[in-house]
Amino acid sequence: MPINADVVHAQIALFSTQENSIVIDWRDGEQSCFHYIWLRDNAPDARDPRNGQRLLESIDIPADIRPATVQITDDGQLEIIWSNDQSRSVFAPTWLREQSRSPRADAEPRTLWDGQLRPLPTGNFDKVAHDAAALRDWLAAVQTYGFAILRGVPIESEALLRVVDLFGYVRETNYGRYFDVKSVVNPNNLAYTGLALSPHTDNPYRDPVPTLQLLHCLAAVDNGGDSTVVDGFCVAETMRQQAPAHFKLLTTVPVRFHFQDKATDLLAEAPLIRLDARGEVAAIRYNNRSIAPFQLAADLIEPYYAAYRAFGRLINSPDYQVTFKLAPGDLFIVDNERVLHGRNGFSSSGNRHLQGCYADRDGLYSKLRVLQRAL
Amino acid sequence: MPINADVVHAQIALFSTQENSIVIDWRDGEQSCFHYIWLRDNAPDARDPRNGQRLLESIDIPADIRPATVQITDDGQLEIIWSNDQSRSVFAPTWLREQSRSPRADAEPRTLWDGQLRPLPTGNFDKVAHDAAALRDWLAAVQTYGFAILRGVPIESEALLRVVDLFGYVRETNYGRYFDVKSVVNPNNLAYTGLALSPHTDNPYRDPVPTLQLLHCLAAVDNGGDSTVVDGFCVAETMRQQAPAHFKLLTTVPVRFHFQDKATDLLAEAPLIRLDARGEVAAIRYNNRSIAPFQLAADLIEPYYAAYRAFGRLINSPDYQVTFKLAPGDLFIVDNERVLHGRNGFSSSGNRHLQGCYADRDGLYSKLRVLQRAL
Repeated sequence: MPINADVVHAQIALFSTQENSIVIDWRDGEQSCFHYIWLRDNAPDARDPRNGQRLLESIDIPADIRPATVQITDDGQLEIIWSNDQSRSVFAPTWLREQSRSPRADAEPRTLWDGQLRPLPTGNFDKVAHDAAALRDWLAAVQTYGFAILRGVPIESEALLRVVDLFGYVRETNYGRYFDVKSVVNPNNLAYTGLALSPHTDNPYRDPVPTLQLLHCLAAVDNGGDSTVVDGFCVAETMRQQAPAHFKLLTTVPVRFHFQDKATDLLAEAPLIRLDARGEVAAIRYNNRSIAPFQLAADLIEPYYAAYRAFGRLINSPDYQVTFKLAPGDLFIVDNERVLHGRNGFSSSGNRHLQGCYADRDGLYSKLRVLQRAL
Repeated sequence: MPINADVVHAQIALFSTQENSIVIDWRDGEQSCFHYIWLRDNAPDARDPRNGQRLLESIDIPADIRPATVQITDDGQLEIIWSNDQSRSVFAPTWLREQSRSPRADAEPRTLWDGQLRPLPTGNFDKVAHDAAALRDWLAAVQTYGFAILRGVPIESEALLRVVDLFGYVRETNYGRYFDVKSVVNPNNLAYTGLALSPHTDNPYRDPVPTLQLLHCLAAVDNGGDSTVVDGFCVAETMRQQAPAHFKLLTTVPVRFHFQDKATDLLAEAPLIRLDARGEVAAIRYNNRSIAPFQLAADLIEPYYAAYRAFGRLINSPDYQVTFKLAPGDLFIVDNERVLHGRNGFSSSGNRHLQGCYADRDGLYSKLRVLQRAL
């Protein structure tokens, strides 16, 4: 009979108590160390069985918390009786083993890409709307690539909201729950003209930025208006490798973005590339149309412009751009903190018509995890 | 006739052209330096007059851009004819002078506070709903203190959405557009019990976190259920001063927050205190009930727990807490990345009933700026 590796590796072979911790030797030869304070803080008896939320205040645990006794129960669990109040905590070995893996082991899967990306991640509306596995795969593509296309969305106003309903919630803004992208007279935004828009992230003047954007094509023009997407994380990593001094400036110097009209006055300040606490690229904010004049020390102006323009040249290079044409009924979604989007120009008399809306990534990732749980 | 200082200080007395820049001597004796690339990039003729958005791609400016001629016009403006294409840019001196002030001059006004804060920032619903100056003042209080009370809100379901309508947009989540906070059987969240909730920020397992939270009282109980707020920025600055080693850990070590129920699986990772690119405290994420078990290197567990518990002790200290009781019709709003909120316990048979919802700070600040413009 084959041995289940998962079961063996989560069996406790030995344990030894140290001054502040218990060291566990697993049956597969690995070793883990668990501090008493951590064990008391995370014991199952300190959590609400209905929702997993912690019932105990971490600050109430005595700093010198110690076990009175430690033993392995007949069914292989780790049992601790605590010396301060004789309470009993029982830990499942599989749970303990899970906790000792690397904290990045469950990081989101992510594939960086450039202009060579083929095929483009694409789903079909009818399938993702009716088949949980198809929805899971389409959402996973959004997580992996930071963008995906969806074909066959009904060619009717507000159909894009039905796509959002599949995974999350609209982020309403001053532009409405959704907005029409077409040429208008006296536009309050260059999106509402026939001008080309170089790749950008949307609403950089907002904090928090909407983390997802959807654009749904209701009418296309024969010439122009093609869509472009660029993986900002790929461009940022390229810059980190090829021009570390530029990368340093783009990740540390805050710049401002501004949008004003009669009823709106949005202002946000951030570096173009945000790194997370681990130094990994976490967000891109780039929009040459709404970036405010740099207010930098005189000796920073030239180096900063050099970095900014180097970044802009990569973003505008065909090497990094994927271009495709939306037909009526096609939609694409971008992670608006990762993938920049743009379009070619078109005649402002053409009746190209997209509808756009914003949403947030947390709802999409939550839905994806729930689907991955079930299937 | 009195001389208007604003006019004098924005008059150009002299200019001199350097290799890469123009140095301007202002009539009040100050001096500013403007690089040619910056001037070309930010020239009014490069922006759409309808919306102020930049029409020119910064990457298209020649790196060695130089003026052919520079002069002060008869009405005191700076006129540059560019050597590459003979285009003409004219800069208003007031605008130039504004650009050379310190970038933090227009930072949001912010007052840190502790348990001594009196009076509590408070508005009246009828006034803020009908008087733009009253609304401006109440929104300014939210910006300054990170929280404010509003009295006299209609005691009816969904009235809190009318408050959001005054300044922005609801952030819908898995909890709905709004949610009822009262004791229920089988709660999926400890908020829906009579348990005390120590001060916390909401939804730390979400990314982006909702940046505003409103809680509106529809029914109160005689005993317990009092509300507590704590200025997390004040606590963080205290920690920076008193325990820099703890502060360092709390600002650099990412920890995870997790929320799961049948339909939801939310997970986010961040340090408890987020610093912005200038090293200023930008966001607090603290919720002892939904923080996940720390997965840290063994030698970090004890120092991190020491920092985490020191932070928790400050947050739970009466020195930093402001406590007040909501009566039916009272509402309070918090900046959910700055001010922690909590409540005392109450009998789970009591019919305390709050309605809560989330919104975002960007809409509130935008509305405030527009009101400040007009009044």
